[in-house]
Amino acid sequence: MDRPTLRDIEAARDRIAANARVTPVYGSESLSRLVGCTVYLKAENLQRTGSFKVRGAVNKLSTLGDEQRRAGVLAASAGNHGQAVAWAARQLGIKATVFMPQDAPMAKVDATRNYGAETVLAGAGFDEAVALAAAHSQETGATFVHAFEDPVVIAGQGTIGLELAAELPDVETFVLPIGGGGLAAGISIALRELRPGVRIVGVQAGKTAAGTIADGIAVKYPGTLTMSILDDVLDDIVHVDDEEIAEAITLLLERVKLVVEGAVAASVAALLRGKVGRAKNACALLSGGNIDPTLLITVMRHGLTAAGRYLVIRTRIPDRPGGLVELLELVAAERGNVVSVEHHREGMAIHLAETEVELTVVTRDEDHCEALCAALGDRGYALDRLG
Amino acid sequence: MDRPTLRDIEAARDRIAANARVTPVYGSESLSRLVGCTVYLKAENLQRTGSFKVRGAVNKLSTLGDEQRRAGVLAASAGNHGQAVAWAARQLGIKATVFMPQDAPMAKVDATRNYGAETVLAGAGFDEAVALAAAHSQETGATFVHAFEDPVVIAGQGTIGLELAAELPDVETFVLPIGGGGLAAGISIALRELRPGVRIVGVQAGKTAAGTIADGIAVKYPGTLTMSILDDVLDDIVHVDDEEIAEAITLLLERVKLVVEGAVAASVAALLRGKVGRAKNACALLSGGNIDPTLLITVMRHGLTAAGRYLVIRTRIPDRPGGLVELLELVAAERGNVVSVEHHREGMAIHLAETEVELTVVTRDEDHCEALCAALGDRGYALDRLG
Repeated sequence: MDRPTLRDIEAARDRIAANARVTPVYGSESLSRLVGCTVYLKAENLQRTGSFKVRGAVNKLSTLGDEQRRAGVLAASAGNHGQAVAWAARQLGIKATVFMPQDAPMAKVDATRNYGAETVLAGAGFDEAVALAAAHSQETGATFVHAFEDPVVIAGQGTIGLELAAELPDVETFVLPIGGGGLAAGISIALRELRPGVRIVGVQAGKTAAGTIADGIAVKYPGTLTMSILDDVLDDIVHVDDEEIAEAITLLLERVKLVVEGAVAASVAALLRGKVGRAKNACALLSGGNIDPTLLITVMRHGLTAAGRYLVIRTRIPDRPGGLVELLELVAAERGNVVSVEHHREGMAIHLAETEVELTVVTRDEDHCEALCAALGDRGYALDRLG
Repeated sequence: MDRPTLRDIEAARDRIAANARVTPVYGSESLSRLVGCTVYLKAENLQRTGSFKVRGAVNKLSTLGDEQRRAGVLAASAGNHGQAVAWAARQLGIKATVFMPQDAPMAKVDATRNYGAETVLAGAGFDEAVALAAAHSQETGATFVHAFEDPVVIAGQGTIGLELAAELPDVETFVLPIGGGGLAAGISIALRELRPGVRIVGVQAGKTAAGTIADGIAVKYPGTLTMSILDDVLDDIVHVDDEEIAEAITLLLERVKLVVEGAVAASVAALLRGKVGRAKNACALLSGGNIDPTLLITVMRHGLTAAGRYLVIRTRIPDRPGGLVELLELVAAERGNVVSVEHHREGMAIHLAETEVELTVVTRDEDHCEALCAALGDRGYALDRLG
């Protein structure tokens, strides 16, 4: 497959202008202070359908001929790409069918369906859904729209690069998340031509055993086409882990008031952890906001506990009336706000006259946690700090 | 005190132009579908410091004379107003002191301090902090900046009305949250002159006993000046409760990717619950995003449980090896994702050979919850559904 050129990307911009938003850029004072250089955010999470994928999808569907349009389009995705293809197809009056694994969250199925696509829940995982979609494409003649291994899709994502070059003429460093690689490839092709001197760093989310935060379902490795482009256009590729991503998601939510999904926060995580190298200023791309809210809660709990905003302690109290009250009065005096109390009466280490209590307390910061623990220790409580 | 006029608001616009952002307006397809008319959102939560309050603060501080500037400014607020005054003072080179109740969350104290203000934590609640700030003003000659009972502050907030009139020339209904009332008063004065035919509805968050969601600390009732204006300029005032606000916060976060704080979601809540009356289209103002993240987690848990995305059930299992495994295998077969298991061995209703188990399961929607409960019931488990 041929790589898209700057001219292809400019043509894509004209094609998608009526349907995709030019997304805003924000300077973030909080992030700038934490990172130590001026940080801008390109808020592509505020794009239509919640991610950059509409750019590629609209560009692809706009280039289909009449016969192809009549035959419809197919995609395999339980996430942003599926919603983008569904939305783009409706805008252009094309029938879309989106294949999703059977465990896809109803919120995502509903979103895709609400954009007017037919949804097919089939297959245990993403690979099976792709195989079923490909087979369906053979049968029906519908066009299978790949999420990134397609120069027309890449050109669509590249329109963000045109916007960045115009919006941030003085920025020297651009930090782009890499999933399938179409986004980073398209943007970099545009930036390399328009702003040859800039530094472009790609960020990959490290795969953990559970692999939950970056994304539970979608394939997250670059393809052959995108990887060959990225090899040429990126200055560097760095990696961040789930812990670093969770911290970035929590920070963006609390300080910047923006909701972003896992892999997307990788660009901010890389900046926060100093992995991008020295820069006077930098722009991180926030490419999508479609995080599952149950996952977001888990991530936030984790991020806040790490920041000392929750304290989880285990201690023992005498097993008699008033034993728990004494403990809780001390916590209240230290202005800790108890959110849960658990009793444990069984276990080798627990004396018969004692009961074990696990407290979760909302605290103000790490100093507050330490002051609270010290006050309990002074009164003779033996503490295990669990979080 | 005199009411500000359209001319005052236009003068404020020129004064704050270099410091406050013109915030974006979004059409939201998801909200429009749920409400049944075209819904636009004015995203003032993306304003500098996270709320509209910078508009009034910058306008107020810009009108101070040289001597007043040298004497500095004071505010009493653990929230948006304090951060806004701190930020505006730094922009204009004025010393600011912000009084906060002693329980103010460290995140808010830090934010205010990071904007360069001196912070004083004193007083058990907001009223005491105000009294201390007023006394300090007497002593030092520093100007006390009220959050809303000030025509210059109201004129600053009114600049949003100028933007709305220009950005949404065809919108017929505007829905504005009412806290202290300065925001709704300022915007309505501008809109009434520029777009006399529009309908303007104010929304108040109903006070509950705990009063946590709308705001834990800040005063949330209009003052004498703002109420006298609101009486004249609003078409209607409606009320929403905490439950309705929690639903709106969760929806905005999940579908619109925006974080908003409690009272702010009131405007969207009123639309969702059909309290605004018939409209072809409507604009809801999102006035701020500074929600405490620990509170946001609680709100989201609540909102998601109401939407069937969490299922909490209590049942009894035989107290023998394998008893719990059998139950969990059934849940897994129904594709429920268990997030917590609690055992209870004590209680009148529990037979000696049984143990009580409480499960929290991530589910796809209400249908999924019901299918899962039915499957467990079929296998003889007696269920109490708790959420």
